[in-house]
Amino acid sequence: MAPTPEGSEDTLFPDFPRGPLQAYRARASFNWKELALFLEGEDILRLKKTIFSTLENDPLFAHPRGHDLSLEQYRELTFRRHKRLFEHNFLHPSDLQQNPLKSLVLVNCLGMYDWSLASKVILSTSVFLSAIYNSGFERLFEYIPKVFSMEISGCLALTELSHGSDTKAIRTTAHYDPATEEFILHSPDFEAAKFWVGNMGKTATHAVVFAQLYTPGGQCHGLFPFVVQIRDPKTLLPVPGVMVGDMGRKIGLNGLDNGFAMFHKVRIPRQNLLNQTGDVTPEGTYVTHFKVKCLQDDRQRFGASLGSLSASRVCIVGMCVTNLKLAVCIALRFSATRRQFGPAEGEEIPVLEYQLQQWRLLPYLAAAYALDHFSKSLFLDLMQLQQGLRGDDRSSRQVELGREIHALASAGKPLASWTAQRGIQECREACGGHGYLAMNRLGDLRNENDPNCTYEGDNNVLLQQTSNYLLGLLERGGPGGTRCESPLKSVNFLEAYPAILRQRFEVASLQDCLDSAVPLAAYEWLVCYLLRESQQKLNQERKSGSSDFAARSRAQLKDDAVALVDVIAPPDFILDSPIGRADGELYRNLWAAVLQGSGALERASWWPEFASKPVVGSLRSQL
Amino acid sequence: MAPTPEGSEDTLFPDFPRGPLQAYRARASFNWKELALFLEGEDILRLKKTIFSTLENDPLFAHPRGHDLSLEQYRELTFRRHKRLFEHNFLHPSDLQQNPLKSLVLVNCLGMYDWSLASKVILSTSVFLSAIYNSGFERLFEYIPKVFSMEISGCLALTELSHGSDTKAIRTTAHYDPATEEFILHSPDFEAAKFWVGNMGKTATHAVVFAQLYTPGGQCHGLFPFVVQIRDPKTLLPVPGVMVGDMGRKIGLNGLDNGFAMFHKVRIPRQNLLNQTGDVTPEGTYVTHFKVKCLQDDRQRFGASLGSLSASRVCIVGMCVTNLKLAVCIALRFSATRRQFGPAEGEEIPVLEYQLQQWRLLPYLAAAYALDHFSKSLFLDLMQLQQGLRGDDRSSRQVELGREIHALASAGKPLASWTAQRGIQECREACGGHGYLAMNRLGDLRNENDPNCTYEGDNNVLLQQTSNYLLGLLERGGPGGTRCESPLKSVNFLEAYPAILRQRFEVASLQDCLDSAVPLAAYEWLVCYLLRESQQKLNQERKSGSSDFAARSRAQLKDDAVALVDVIAPPDFILDSPIGRADGELYRNLWAAVLQGSGALERASWWPEFASKPVVGSLRSQL
Repeated sequence: MAPTPEGSEDTLFPDFPRGPLQAYRARASFNWKELALFLEGEDILRLKKTIFSTLENDPLFAHPRGHDLSLEQYRELTFRRHKRLFEHNFLHPSDLQQNPLKSLVLVNCLGMYDWSLASKVILSTSVFLSAIYNSGFERLFEYIPKVFSMEISGCLALTELSHGSDTKAIRTTAHYDPATEEFILHSPDFEAAKFWVGNMGKTATHAVVFAQLYTPGGQCHGLFPFVVQIRDPKTLLPVPGVMVGDMGRKIGLNGLDNGFAMFHKVRIPRQNLLNQTGDVTPEGTYVTHFKVKCLQDDRQRFGASLGSLSASRVCIVGMCVTNLKLAVCIALRFSATRRQFGPAEGEEIPVLEYQLQQWRLLPYLAAAYALDHFSKSLFLDLMQLQQGLRGDDRSSRQVELGREIHALASAGKPLASWTAQRGIQECREACGGHGYLAMNRLGDLRNENDPNCTYEGDNNVLLQQTSNYLLGLLERGGPGGTRCESPLKSVNFLEAYPAILRQRFEVASLQDCLDSAVPLAAYEWLVCYLLRESQQKLNQERKSGSSDFAARSRAQLKDDAVALVDVIAPPDFILDSPIGRADGELYRNLWAAVLQGSGALERASWWPEFASKPVVGSLRSQL
Repeated sequence: MAPTPEGSEDTLFPDFPRGPLQAYRARASFNWKELALFLEGEDILRLKKTIFSTLENDPLFAHPRGHDLSLEQYRELTFRRHKRLFEHNFLHPSDLQQNPLKSLVLVNCLGMYDWSLASKVILSTSVFLSAIYNSGFERLFEYIPKVFSMEISGCLALTELSHGSDTKAIRTTAHYDPATEEFILHSPDFEAAKFWVGNMGKTATHAVVFAQLYTPGGQCHGLFPFVVQIRDPKTLLPVPGVMVGDMGRKIGLNGLDNGFAMFHKVRIPRQNLLNQTGDVTPEGTYVTHFKVKCLQDDRQRFGASLGSLSASRVCIVGMCVTNLKLAVCIALRFSATRRQFGPAEGEEIPVLEYQLQQWRLLPYLAAAYALDHFSKSLFLDLMQLQQGLRGDDRSSRQVELGREIHALASAGKPLASWTAQRGIQECREACGGHGYLAMNRLGDLRNENDPNCTYEGDNNVLLQQTSNYLLGLLERGGPGGTRCESPLKSVNFLEAYPAILRQRFEVASLQDCLDSAVPLAAYEWLVCYLLRESQQKLNQERKSGSSDFAARSRAQLKDDAVALVDVIAPPDFILDSPIGRADGELYRNLWAAVLQGSGALERASWWPEFASKPVVGSLRSQL
């Protein structure tokens, strides 16, 4: 085995057990311990080791995987594990100050173990508190200690049954009643039920609920977040007027209880409006620019909101990379030990020796490394942005940084999630039948990575946001002489836009192709080329006027699509999909199926577990 | 609604319930009932209706889907449903004589309902009986009535834990003992355990087991199939010497019990050798060309074996098409009723109106129609081939037909399975969050289509078989003047190979592009171009000698792959995948995990269900 790198303790890198992988390990051209230390640093490696060995040594975290449990059992187990994490308390605030990457590492380590657990941790604490922090943070301090002692458990409720991406179309209302100084929260019908809310199904006691704010007289002031209690923390029974339930089984992540809620004239104190961008006086007058201290102009507000949108996407990039890493680990170790056929009779070689297997898997191994670096550096950039927001940085650099990170995260999330999704599928297929056994985990990885492709912005839609950013840069520069300088320098190369487009790649030998400058130049050329094409198309469409929306729609094969489907569709009983039924009553069918789910509206059988609180840090490792 | 097409009864096409899909239905440019009648014919439509309404009206077939059941419950339910199908007895032999497509339709209708059930039906009956038929059919007649009255239940055991694709490396042995006129079946160790055998886990009483045949003196005569009893049909307990068990949970298809078996010196009568290609005399002498009547030369034997290999691939093409159809039905009906955003304030349009959604989904709708036609016509070609085999057709046309169908099936299975797999994923993503709810079935479809990509030949490997066929045609024709004529005419265009390669596409107007001759010509050009490139590469490699195997292997990034994985892999407890463990003891880890599966070696709790037999046809519909 390779020697232990200088400066690190031996226990940081226990030697691998001897076995069939030894032969490949001996042939490696580098020392893996040195590379791990170089990539992560001793501090992070030690944190990972602590987390991993704590989970391994605590019997509550013993497998089985979720698919061997009923939905109720898996949700109970995930809740108990979440509660136990408070006792293990892996990170102190001081750890994060010292190295902000540690929070990313913690999430991804928990995710490597089980994404249901990691998601529950994030949603019930950081997402809930960030929503409050981003929207009116002086009222945050009341909630922080309650969340971190598990006195309450939070969630964030924006999406409704019939609306997701188009947040302006959200239909939950909050009417202000000056007589009692309360808001009256109301869901007009089941299509306006809050839907998909993580941690709401069985657990959350409080929600940040987005609703249209109305003042007396009936004027609507747009969408605002409100803190709403939804369950009694002592009993986990819903508070009066709230119908809250569990959405049932998903393709994956079934330890996480996604839920729905409807509000029937639920009254909440005026102070529960999160009043970052507007407020209502006790008498019922709407006032805006209330908090002048914080963000003075629209540009700044826009930058800040881009920053908070980016945070979840940056986090998702890390989740996807984590999944891809796990999949390539499994598939490559399998390929290095699975032997089939060989150059001579009776001699068999590992399937990794076949070019076909290398061609299928090695690009994903490379992608795992490249995206891992991207994920970490983007996370650190985001920390810089957030520090600026906290420090009330009003510079134009800060605004540009917000835009650039938003553009990077909006392209990075699709890149990472699709690469991971395709990579996991390739790994599954590359392991043949053995890859199809549930115990080997590739199915779980695929099912749990899958939502990364659509939530926090559908991938296809997000890519358009990055295009808009790039086209905007081009327009600002004007034709001929683009002026590009971004805080992270990711688009600086566009300054040479015309020159890059004139470049041609000439190759004299194989060696020329292996130079790492070649793919970089090709990448730059491709971006410039696609930008030019897009801009030309866009200009053409602008010239042709605005009616092309309808014209383009009319041109496609789509009017026949439903009838073509009718020809091949089996009866509803066989198709067995509420969103695919022949009557097209999408929401009615979906809502009925959700409510018919086993125990959808029942309190969790394990509710007393919530009533007894964890002693925070009591099991914290002394490692 | 459109009028009922002439000649069909009204009940064949009940009108759809009115609802939001009505608007699209009214805009269709054709009558969907006429198209359905044109594509399927009244006879097939009536069979489908009978199957679907029988399942819907029998409470045993009421959902829930498998994911709401424990493994044991789902397997019991699938077994009970299978048994009930004997009572419904949808197809008589006379139905199949009248229209062989009906068997394909039955399988796909059952698969639309649940692939676990459909697979169990196929594996326990057709696959088991075909294996006997193809390998020595005079002994078939003893088994047919037993299988079709459920007195016994069959399976086919070829793959072993450590070997699949390379059948020559199969290690189970069958030594002949002239003293008792028996074969002694033996598994040398657990790596030679039969593995992945569908229907073996909890149900099968008999297996066709492939083993290396040894005669006294120790001479090995290669791989032969043997009929072996593995369980007592009265009790479902294993017979002495057989260790048989269930492999546990898979990514999907969990109603089907895939199993494993080891044989410890199990004695079976000499007559249980399926002696199509060789036999052993009572005294222990190996004799070949025993059945001169049937297939006289190697060419014919080769053609026949290609035919039987093709059968399962042709069947898989149909399974994939079925899955793709279901997915596009769900996603397109969803897209036609889900409204988000719109051209004006307050007006929302179905997401199907967006070009992006059309661009994502309509190609898969087109693929579903195209592949459906391909699937049916290939199936009918296969029926022609099998008829020839039964009729002892020794013509060279029959041999060529076998080769051509093998080439079409070997390319068609990858095409259909990958198109379906990607299409289902696209449909899942196109339905956003609602697509991620288990009840909407897209996850199940993906999980159940997935094995089609790897079993009966990994897709990548199969594609090479079709390339070999095409390159072979080119070589037979010689350079310059290729002579191509195949029974199904699928490659006849290669006769014009040089002329096609000289073709250039010139377009004067958009109308030119819409001509269906354009993609056909492009397809022909592409095949010819790729063939020429492949042939040139192959010739180059032949010239460079045989040592390039090692040279090419050495060139890649791969020696470092295991160490690169070591850097990013979490500890085994977290990675939680037997095939990905750090020690690389692939089979030991996998075998241990399978044996530790809950109840892996236990008899099914529902075994008495097997003991009571169905009354075949007792519930047959009079429709």
